[in-house]
Amino acid sequence: MTKQQKESKTVNIDIRKDLFGANENAAAINAETLKKHGVIAFDIMGSVGTGKTQLIEALCEHLRGKYRILMFAGDLATTIDADRVASHGIDTVQINTGTACHLDARMIKLALQKVDLSYYQVVFIENVGNLICPAGYSLGVDKKIVVVSVTEGPYMIRKHPLTIKHADMVIINKIDLVEVLGFDVDALESDIREVDAKIPVFRVSSTTGEGIEKLIKALNL
Amino acid sequence: MTKQQKESKTVNIDIRKDLFGANENAAAINAETLKKHGVIAFDIMGSVGTGKTQLIEALCEHLRGKYRILMFAGDLATTIDADRVASHGIDTVQINTGTACHLDARMIKLALQKVDLSYYQVVFIENVGNLICPAGYSLGVDKKIVVVSVTEGPYMIRKHPLTIKHADMVIINKIDLVEVLGFDVDALESDIREVDAKIPVFRVSSTTGEGIEKLIKALNL
Repeated sequence: MTKQQKESKTVNIDIRKDLFGANENAAAINAETLKKHGVIAFDIMGSVGTGKTQLIEALCEHLRGKYRILMFAGDLATTIDADRVASHGIDTVQINTGTACHLDARMIKLALQKVDLSYYQVVFIENVGNLICPAGYSLGVDKKIVVVSVTEGPYMIRKHPLTIKHADMVIINKIDLVEVLGFDVDALESDIREVDAKIPVFRVSSTTGEGIEKLIKALNL
Repeated sequence: MTKQQKESKTVNIDIRKDLFGANENAAAINAETLKKHGVIAFDIMGSVGTGKTQLIEALCEHLRGKYRILMFAGDLATTIDADRVASHGIDTVQINTGTACHLDARMIKLALQKVDLSYYQVVFIENVGNLICPAGYSLGVDKKIVVVSVTEGPYMIRKHPLTIKHADMVIINKIDLVEVLGFDVDALESDIREVDAKIPVFRVSSTTGEGIEKLIKALNL
């Protein structure tokens, strides 16, 4: 029993290294594959119910006349999100992770092998609804975007600085609810600035469409 | 390289078993320790911003004249939640997990060793804000309570059935926002019932106090 525990403890460290190493390798391959086909890809992360799917729907509504878009939906179970985006005429790939709390680069690598990437120009990857775990796993995309919502209360940035540090852009979603919730968006934005003074922050409402066009410009789309 | 990957793959399975085994062992010890001191303990789980802290604050406001309460606050960083509950005159223990996305039984075991448990009667453990990862880890408490919020959108139960399966009770929080959000609570409750027909479900607002006394009765407090 003691022997077994001792072995496991040692191996645990090796595995974590190996897992992260394998992830970084797969991410590099994904980045190369996407680049080769001229595809721009976005990893959309955020907690449960921050409106990631609705944001992707809003972006697709604006962009589907201009680009051929593919959406990857990461979820533990169900095809709810993929179905919602598919209803806008967008091709989708469902990645069900079972119990895994995040997508990793190897899942995306497998998924990329299953589609004809030469057909598409933009890929939106909706990560598993989780503000913590996806942040540490590169997928090999062009931009890692964190979606936070004004419904999550005032402390989510201060509690999750690493998520912001790993991201390239932060979207404050559901801005239409600020007044009814009495939420202080400026305070939230200065929490973000405290972690990363230069990260682009956009305030949007996927429901009313506020801020979506400005966001699209910032994404160079 | 190939050899290394092969080894790691095999060991990975062993480690998961060992980790979960070690957690179950620690959970059993925690349960025994709590029982020995006549302490009732609750593991409060839920995604970021579902109002776990505010719920614990509301419960403490009602119960602090009746019981000696201890609160464990699990978070990646900061003491924000512990400080909020401490402001109600409640003793608190902060457990910062660093990058770990959930509390486990061994963290609680360590924390229980640092307090004089004979002094307390009720322990509230606020888990890390995450709807996925905490569900799989028993802490050795009396009840695992999942807090969901009407601000999380309509699909969180269907996407996270395992979290409900692992829980003893579900609290639908922020019920005061149902009207402004146009949220269908009955549909949410029937999603919960579909996963577990018998699990107790309570609708509360920690802001207005609606449902809190009924919840306290159901907790036998």
